[in-house]
Amino acid sequence: MSVNADLQRERAAATLDSEDFARWWAGGSWQLEERRALERRFYEDPDFAEPVHPSCLSYKERYEQTVARSTRFLAKLRQWQREKQPQLQLSVNMLRDFRLLLSGSLGTGLFQQSFPLRVHFSMFMTTLLSQGTEEQQAQWLNRSWHMDGVLGTYAQTELGHGTFVRGLETRADYDPITQEFILNTPTQSSYKWWPGGLGNTANVAIVLAQLYVKGKHYGLQSFVVRIRDERTHEPLTGVDVGDIGPRLGGNGVNNGFLGLRDVRIPRNQMLMKNAQVLTDGTFVQGRPPLLLYGTMVYVRVITLKDVLFGLLQAATIATRYSVVRRQSRINSDQPEVSILDHITQQAKILPQIARGVSYRLVSDWVWRFYEDVLRQLEDESTAGRNSLPELHALSCCLKAVATDEASEGVELLRKSCGGHGFLSSANFDSIYGLTAAAYTYEGEYTVLLLQTARFLVRQYVDSLKRKVLPSSVSYLRDTSRLVWGKNLAANCVRALEISAMEQVRQAWQTQKTHQSSKVSAEMASNLAGRQLTSAAIAHAHAFFTRNALEQVEALRKKGDLSPNVSLVLGQLVELFVIDTFLRQSGCVLRWNNGITGTQLRFVERRFEELLAKLRPNAVALVDGFDFHDRVLGSTLGCHDGRVYERLMEEARRNPVNQEPVNSSFHNHLLPMMRGKL
Amino acid sequence: MSVNADLQRERAAATLDSEDFARWWAGGSWQLEERRALERRFYEDPDFAEPVHPSCLSYKERYEQTVARSTRFLAKLRQWQREKQPQLQLSVNMLRDFRLLLSGSLGTGLFQQSFPLRVHFSMFMTTLLSQGTEEQQAQWLNRSWHMDGVLGTYAQTELGHGTFVRGLETRADYDPITQEFILNTPTQSSYKWWPGGLGNTANVAIVLAQLYVKGKHYGLQSFVVRIRDERTHEPLTGVDVGDIGPRLGGNGVNNGFLGLRDVRIPRNQMLMKNAQVLTDGTFVQGRPPLLLYGTMVYVRVITLKDVLFGLLQAATIATRYSVVRRQSRINSDQPEVSILDHITQQAKILPQIARGVSYRLVSDWVWRFYEDVLRQLEDESTAGRNSLPELHALSCCLKAVATDEASEGVELLRKSCGGHGFLSSANFDSIYGLTAAAYTYEGEYTVLLLQTARFLVRQYVDSLKRKVLPSSVSYLRDTSRLVWGKNLAANCVRALEISAMEQVRQAWQTQKTHQSSKVSAEMASNLAGRQLTSAAIAHAHAFFTRNALEQVEALRKKGDLSPNVSLVLGQLVELFVIDTFLRQSGCVLRWNNGITGTQLRFVERRFEELLAKLRPNAVALVDGFDFHDRVLGSTLGCHDGRVYERLMEEARRNPVNQEPVNSSFHNHLLPMMRGKL
Repeated sequence: MSVNADLQRERAAATLDSEDFARWWAGGSWQLEERRALERRFYEDPDFAEPVHPSCLSYKERYEQTVARSTRFLAKLRQWQREKQPQLQLSVNMLRDFRLLLSGSLGTGLFQQSFPLRVHFSMFMTTLLSQGTEEQQAQWLNRSWHMDGVLGTYAQTELGHGTFVRGLETRADYDPITQEFILNTPTQSSYKWWPGGLGNTANVAIVLAQLYVKGKHYGLQSFVVRIRDERTHEPLTGVDVGDIGPRLGGNGVNNGFLGLRDVRIPRNQMLMKNAQVLTDGTFVQGRPPLLLYGTMVYVRVITLKDVLFGLLQAATIATRYSVVRRQSRINSDQPEVSILDHITQQAKILPQIARGVSYRLVSDWVWRFYEDVLRQLEDESTAGRNSLPELHALSCCLKAVATDEASEGVELLRKSCGGHGFLSSANFDSIYGLTAAAYTYEGEYTVLLLQTARFLVRQYVDSLKRKVLPSSVSYLRDTSRLVWGKNLAANCVRALEISAMEQVRQAWQTQKTHQSSKVSAEMASNLAGRQLTSAAIAHAHAFFTRNALEQVEALRKKGDLSPNVSLVLGQLVELFVIDTFLRQSGCVLRWNNGITGTQLRFVERRFEELLAKLRPNAVALVDGFDFHDRVLGSTLGCHDGRVYERLMEEARRNPVNQEPVNSSFHNHLLPMMRGKL
Repeated sequence: MSVNADLQRERAAATLDSEDFARWWAGGSWQLEERRALERRFYEDPDFAEPVHPSCLSYKERYEQTVARSTRFLAKLRQWQREKQPQLQLSVNMLRDFRLLLSGSLGTGLFQQSFPLRVHFSMFMTTLLSQGTEEQQAQWLNRSWHMDGVLGTYAQTELGHGTFVRGLETRADYDPITQEFILNTPTQSSYKWWPGGLGNTANVAIVLAQLYVKGKHYGLQSFVVRIRDERTHEPLTGVDVGDIGPRLGGNGVNNGFLGLRDVRIPRNQMLMKNAQVLTDGTFVQGRPPLLLYGTMVYVRVITLKDVLFGLLQAATIATRYSVVRRQSRINSDQPEVSILDHITQQAKILPQIARGVSYRLVSDWVWRFYEDVLRQLEDESTAGRNSLPELHALSCCLKAVATDEASEGVELLRKSCGGHGFLSSANFDSIYGLTAAAYTYEGEYTVLLLQTARFLVRQYVDSLKRKVLPSSVSYLRDTSRLVWGKNLAANCVRALEISAMEQVRQAWQTQKTHQSSKVSAEMASNLAGRQLTSAAIAHAHAFFTRNALEQVEALRKKGDLSPNVSLVLGQLVELFVIDTFLRQSGCVLRWNNGITGTQLRFVERRFEELLAKLRPNAVALVDGFDFHDRVLGSTLGCHDGRVYERLMEEARRNPVNQEPVNSSFHNHLLPMMRGKL
């Protein structure tokens, strides 16, 4: 098939070599080629063709189609793994690699709205690993790895309880006579709600419940509960299970509800690595699971990577479409231009690319920080223990701000494609659904910001006591005013840091003021909520911008970048910094009242200069992210730019267009016309 | 059924009488009661029950269900109209009333994602009325009113052409020998794309096409084209028609595509009120249709009303849910609180209510302005002609900014409901879909802003020449600096006006600078695009806030408000003004550098005071919007607050839960487990 002429022209004129960029982006030639080979293998396999667009299916059909495809997918993926490593044995690394394949570009390409068995390999198996004893692992892990009678899910959230985990109501009462736990969801609001795959797929659930022994409460513990018969798949006695219904996104997940009524499990199905219940009911608390903290951090860094992936998918679609789409003239004697030639369109798209790339740099750094801390914790070094709060606070606000900005960005990109962006075949809706979900799951936005804010206020108080602060917040000690230098990006970062410091100070003062007016410390926190969340947001912006700039410098120093990649990367990060500064200008100008109108005009002019510099490389850049057409899943964003052809093809494929006259005509329209309204 | 205890408590403690508010909001007791009676009649009719939630249906099933329901709806609505007015005759007013019923709360309650026959009564019939000659109206109007063989749609937008109407490619060539027009969509990109009901429903389309007579081009004209056989509904020869597929929202509309190949229609099917083609092919241009301008304004004001309706639906759902939902403690010795007690939650929800109510006040004013201008135009007064550009500019930026802020608001409200807001049964997705669509249809956001900006720059240049400016832009002449007085809201409005004026000046200067650097005037406009759109946005904020304050004053003076409604309305508008000021603080502080930190803290404190004042009346307020549960269509937002019960009921109704074991188990899961992965 021919490639759209405008896209061809863009590619020919770019100064950035997209293959160069792709190699760096993928982490090396070898990684790039392996992924491409893997994708070819699956995407060319007729078993994974999609005869009907999923958005046309009923919810039930969609479930059935997703299960059918995902079982084929898992089998073939395991097969591929075995070819690569014939002596395939389950290990932590093996599980992690497998999981990354399920959630990465391959999984996205085949399942735009995910699939129900993913949680089996993520939360279910990782919890077995982290919380099961050796005997429990022997009993469950191998069978799980081979899906030998075990299809698992992880059931924590309840209908009435999400964020506030301590409030969970599901209970497990130990019966020393039979040596069993009796599980119950005693109220409507205690029904488990949301676990992926729980609806119709899983037959075993790890259930979080409040442990009671002889009426005494021992906090939350995890229990392995069989919920469906291994051979018939019928729900077991006392188990009330089903799907919670369609959602804004992720409709392949089969999220479910679960009610339990006097469901008995043997004593050895409480996961007992960290705490035990002995046969006589004696409760033994093990060492506090420091690594649980680590798991939350892990999930948040992964989420950061997920949403920047979604943002760049959307940016790729919008960029290519904006070249192909011609609309409105700039000069009245010329033909209509590619909409990417309108500066207003560039201002919508290019900063999103800059943001996604900058997030990538920062998330790589946070990942390394996480791994360092983990290693230190395993070595039982105090450095690790000391870094945990900083790492945790950082991961909270970065996850919150990145999911918010990424989902806003995906929507902006969708809107930049006008009416066609609104079509499901453009795939912005699926991308948005997954990005928007991340705003809430694994730590709700506002709750995470408040967690970071509490850390920031503590650090600020420490700074007043002249203590040394962790490096990510060391700027809180720097009370110097902004000195506007030659390096624009550096000025912007410094202004953002000053704003963050002042926001933290304001939050602290607001809390103090409320406390002195006779409300409790907790109520004072609540009343300072807006100031606290603003502080955490400002900190995230300061950190994102500072760190992204540092990462480019580090990459350059290491000599990892070819000259043209280095140049474009520098432009992108500078654009990200300036864009953040301008978007935060309310906060920035409030706390940096020395900034002059001339300085602001200078920043704005630089913003537009960077748009102009990046414009010729826009297509080469998004080509360099190397999203396969299947991963984009979009009529608007394919590599060949055949936008209108694909829109028509996708429309014609719709089942509603398979017969010239729909039955509604004879059943309803004709009678109405005959009866005359 | 019992009402949730927390909601009961809220209602008992409110100082606002929600019925009082409801009467004012509905425009009077009589209007309120009539709407309620009408809604009861339809919502209690078993013909309009919905056995399966539409989000569970396939796209085709959804279409069929919508057609079945909408034909019943139209017949019963006509019946009701006849009961009210036995001598029912078609008239412009009658058509308008009927149309309002289809699109208002009744239509929304029955068709959350709209329905295919709406466009028949809106664009199709209004175009016949405004562009058809008397003979053409005699031929088509009565049959259309009774749906006697005519199911109409309006086909303008093409696959490759939306905003830039002049670029449309569909052509109509006049053949003087047969006295017919020959219609063609000569390219892929000229396929008509988007018209509502076109897919499988309409049998007649008004088609916009470029008129050619003997090879000479006479611009865009409208043609009535039969596309499907009246009796068989088969597409006619040369007609290629179908549905364009699922979308982010409005999935009941049956948007379609249309290709035409040498389709011939008689000469009298070009709508000839404003321009004629005589039998010999002579083209006669009539008077320029000033009122077309008016139609665009009309649609934009209606859109403003539509999106504030959606915003307040979402706000009602979020408010009630936030009372019922208890999550996290404020004081550790107390139970979990209603999430509306967290100040961060109040800050998410209450400003959205304030925005919706303020938009309502402003839209009423713009509506009256529009009617005045229309009357003047009909009287051929120059005042009407002179007001048109102002009215047009105003309607452009208000529509753009309101659709943007309303859709952002709906999303924020959805997110404020955490995970449950993500469920389709919460209905935020449908509300968002319709609101988000309005961002693009009937004038794309950025394009509309640029139109307003051009007007503003012209006015600014006039102001430099000391000309008198129209009242909505008279502040452009006021070069005085901000004087911070006692009235906080007035300070905020004035600061917003100064910002708008400075943004307009900056846009004008940027254009001039670019022009002097040797680019064409058009290119200079393109390069100033960011400054121009910012100017139009700033103008919209200045106008919205100023006008909303004025409308409250006017209502108070007229004595239309009871004391408690007057009080709450004043708080809402003040909150809207302050919220706008704070959200625009980047722009505000840039152009008002005299504003001090103390003043800003004062504004922020007032913002929080207003939250605290409005909090006790939040439920009474949203009750006062008087949305029927069917109109909200949400498990989270019902009047009785039975949130968890409804979430469970809706989940259980899902077809995927009707059998204990889905067929996928035997077909796919069991074989996989047996084969072992």
